Amino acid sequence: MNLKNIDKFMIAGPCSIESFEQLLSTARHVKSCGANILRGGAYKPRTSPVSFQGLREEGLKILKEVKEIVNLPVITELMDPRDLKKVYDVADIIQIGSRNMQNFTLLKEVGMQDKPVMLKRGISATIKEWIGASEYISNEGNKNIIMCERGIRTYNDYTRNTLDLAAVPIIKSKTDYKVIVDPSHGTGLRELILPMTKASFALDADGVMIEVHPNPKEALSDGDQSLDFKQFEFLMKNLNEAKFI
Amino acid sequence: MNLKNIDKFMIAGPCSIESFEQLLSTARHVKSCGANILRGGAYKPRTSPVSFQGLREEGLKILKEVKEIVNLPVITELMDPRDLKKVYDVADIIQIGSRNMQNFTLLKEVGMQDKPVMLKRGISATIKEWIGASEYISNEGNKNIIMCERGIRTYNDYTRNTLDLAAVPIIKSKTDYKVIVDPSHGTGLRELILPMTKASFALDADGVMIEVHPNPKEALSDGDQSLDFKQFEFLMKNLNEAKFI
Amino acid sequence: MNLKNIDKFMIAGPCSIESFEQLLSTARHVKSCGANILRGGAYKPRTSPVSFQGLREEGLKILKEVKEIVNLPVITELMDPRDLKKVYDVADIIQIGSRNMQNFTLLKEVGMQDKPVMLKRGISATIKEWIGASEYISNEGNKNIIMCERGIRTYNDYTRNTLDLAAVPIIKSKTDYKVIVDPSHGTGLRELILPMTKASFALDADGVMIEVHPNPKEALSDGDQSLDFKQFEFLMKNLNEAKFI
Amino acid sequence: MNLKNIDKFMIAGPCSIESFEQLLSTARHVKSCGANILRGGAYKPRTSPVSFQGLREEGLKILKEVKEIVNLPVITELMDPRDLKKVYDVADIIQIGSRNMQNFTLLKEVGMQDKPVMLKRGISATIKEWIGASEYISNEGNKNIIMCERGIRTYNDYTRNTLDLAAVPIIKSKTDYKVIVDPSHGTGLRELILPMTKASFALDADGVMIEVHPNPKEALSDGDQSLDFKQFEFLMKNLNEAKFI
Repeated sequence: MNLKNIDKFMIAGPCSIESFEQLLSTARHVKSCGANILRGGAYKPRTSPVSFQGLREEGLKILKEVKEIVNLPVITELMDPRDLKKVYDVADIIQIGSRNMQNFTLLKEVGMQDKPVMLKRGISATIKEWIGASEYISNEGNKNIIMCERGIRTYNDYTRNTLDLAAVPIIKSKTDYKVIVDPSHGTGLRELILPMTKASFALDADGVMIEVHPNPKEALSDGDQSLDFKQFEFLMKNLNEAKFI
Repeated sequence: MNLKNIDKFMIAGPCSIESFEQLLSTARHVKSCGANILRGGAYKPRTSPVSFQGLREEGLKILKEVKEIVNLPVITELMDPRDLKKVYDVADIIQIGSRNMQNFTLLKEVGMQDKPVMLKRGISATIKEWIGASEYISNEGNKNIIMCERGIRTYNDYTRNTLDLAAVPIIKSKTDYKVIVDPSHGTGLRELILPMTKASFALDADGVMIEVHPNPKEALSDGDQSLDFKQFEFLMKNLNEAKFI
Repeated sequence: MNLKNIDKFMIAGPCSIESFEQLLSTARHVKSCGANILRGGAYKPRTSPVSFQGLREEGLKILKEVKEIVNLPVITELMDPRDLKKVYDVADIIQIGSRNMQNFTLLKEVGMQDKPVMLKRGISATIKEWIGASEYISNEGNKNIIMCERGIRTYNDYTRNTLDLAAVPIIKSKTDYKVIVDPSHGTGLRELILPMTKASFALDADGVMIEVHPNPKEALSDGDQSLDFKQFEFLMKNLNEAKFI
Repeated sequence: MNLKNIDKFMIAGPCSIESFEQLLSTARHVKSCGANILRGGAYKPRTSPVSFQGLREEGLKILKEVKEIVNLPVITELMDPRDLKKVYDVADIIQIGSRNMQNFTLLKEVGMQDKPVMLKRGISATIKEWIGASEYISNEGNKNIIMCERGIRTYNDYTRNTLDLAAVPIIKSKTDYKVIVDPSHGTGLRELILPMTKASFALDADGVMIEVHPNPKEALSDGDQSLDFKQFEFLMKNLNEAKFI
């Protein structure tokens, strides 16, 4: 996948892959609404080792099947360098999560392979540290990088994180990378996803990544910040009407 | 001034009033570009008592003269309840600055008079604290309030503050007040003012407040974040073309 | 009161003055345990205008009576310059609260009178801003200042605030002022008050300010962080045994 | 090494191993002053891939030689699971750095081996996340854990980080682990190391980790926060006199 060929990254899908049916129905729906990349986590980083850790290899298998049926490129997270081959086999874009933004081992590994990498900003990373992390990837040869602003940790507890939208024009002025925004993690509140997506596009972001789930109330992770199918349809329609996408 | 009658607050002018000529030339320029309110500080809150504290009464006098010549409503900051009459005499909107967001004495005073009040968010205020502060004003009878997001203090040192744009839809959903954004203080960086203004309007902000100075390099305060005349003209043109105003 | 004459400021008492009986019993108890200054708030700064705002003038009257009966100097907060005479009449030390650290009007007023001032650090004040604020007082002539570290606002939500104990040696190296610590507000958790007090004294703090209430569960404000009489007795005994006081 | 047998962990040495002579002289000196564990980084996590990354395997070799000559247990950082055998071969305690606090792959690996692990707090980790991270280690069987408070990231830029000393009693009340403090990284300022060490011991910390370098001005990393030999000698003498160790 050549990132240059995509004008707007409309990435959508569930936080975690929970079942074949869940992912298939979500993939079909988001594609029909205009999403051009499917997200779905097989390996999930969680605060506690006893929380749901994702379906792991079973999740990757589901992701591969759904990808082929629906014909939509996919992005999924890599947490352990030893899983690279398995993830590479399925993913069109490899995601490095916030917690691993300075896992330099992992960064170098994805820098040595040829698929695009989406590097999420660390939860308290400075601009300098985030760009430094991207250089651990590009230094190994892979310059196909998407930077994803996903909110920073501040004293402000109304939202899950504080979306630092100024990072969009800053990173665009300092790098040649694509820059996207994750308003789902960035706010943690469903009702803020559409407005913050519009703000992102007003800032010339190259895309957004949005959590969509058939039934957010029953999601195994991040239900509060997931859109259901109707809400996602509404969002895409609204963005189209506003000519943001 | 009835706030309901204004669709978009395009507030522009210098951080500090420095001279009659400085304010007059700025007022004429920003009006010709489409600004509908002139800003200009006579009383300046400063970290150190030996820094420039504003022209004070002399500044208010200049503000009054310029306002009459140019025929533009003005906003200026009140810091001390004992200056209320003097400020009331000139201001169309009375500004309460960030440092005074929880100066409850001052809030009650401006709640008891009949001119609109712009309440800037405290530099580390939560949403609850900011709304609580507005209630100290409205409780006294004055419900003519503009809430101004002006950036919060975080670990992130690339920008002067971190503009918390999610506050715009949040405050609009929880109050009936007008909500505007100050991208000058919110970022501290001239080149971010236009993009963050566009993002603010994409979030349905009711306006912005922008620092403009004839010669930012020689400004007595906040030069780095002030636009010069050409830059402000470009910003207004750009916002018009994008149909944000 | 000459601050130089006091070696360790052991300030104790309720957050708010609630009744004559409450304050008298607390004053007698803390004095018997070795406290040398009584605290008690008559004017209380609160996020919402409909929360309990303190007994105000009635509270000052109680404070004066108790002070005379128990013969203990007192500290109480001034929020409004117009209340200065009333507060001056009772207080041995005038407290400026965190929310008013940059209420420059108030700072100048207490700088022009001759009683000692305790200046609490603003909730997100830098060292430079805190010292700058103290200069608004000293510039007017009053150099009898106590700086009080009371915790700063961070992402960390386990404690109410994050006590920045490094501020103690920093302020002591940069000023001639007394420096004390408020572990009650600084942590918000009763069980941390004793350890953080010991840490403060290990850093050569000049004292601490501790909330004590006859029945913390029924306190009108800050119950969770108040010690009951037995707990305060235990704390003082422990500090004595460790030779911290 | 059984952590239970050590009363106070006095860990000292250079941030990075730079040469055999540098490490040997430092090791001899800190041992003579009473340190009981030598620190020295062979693998260094750095913001940029072009900064000095440590001597790596050559550094481990030097560490092994010096350890045998001076007869002092050593602690060194592991960043990549693939280096575990090499690090295990030399280290008495394996350090997991702040940036890797949620590198769950790495945590599980050190959980499956039998040497003690020191887990530094992530730069913006909550108490819950830090304890969660420790459970990734203990869940695999290794309960020989030292938790190291090393400062959190806040708005406060006077110190490099804000040492959250309340974490010491909190972690001790919630776990059975040893808890130590790193005042060098926690403050970034040489003159604060001694006072913050004393405060740590007043809080019953189980030890401290202190950077010592023969010539801090020429250190390849963290020179500003390193003590020279005389300063470390003074610190140890002072702690002894105060009966903290």
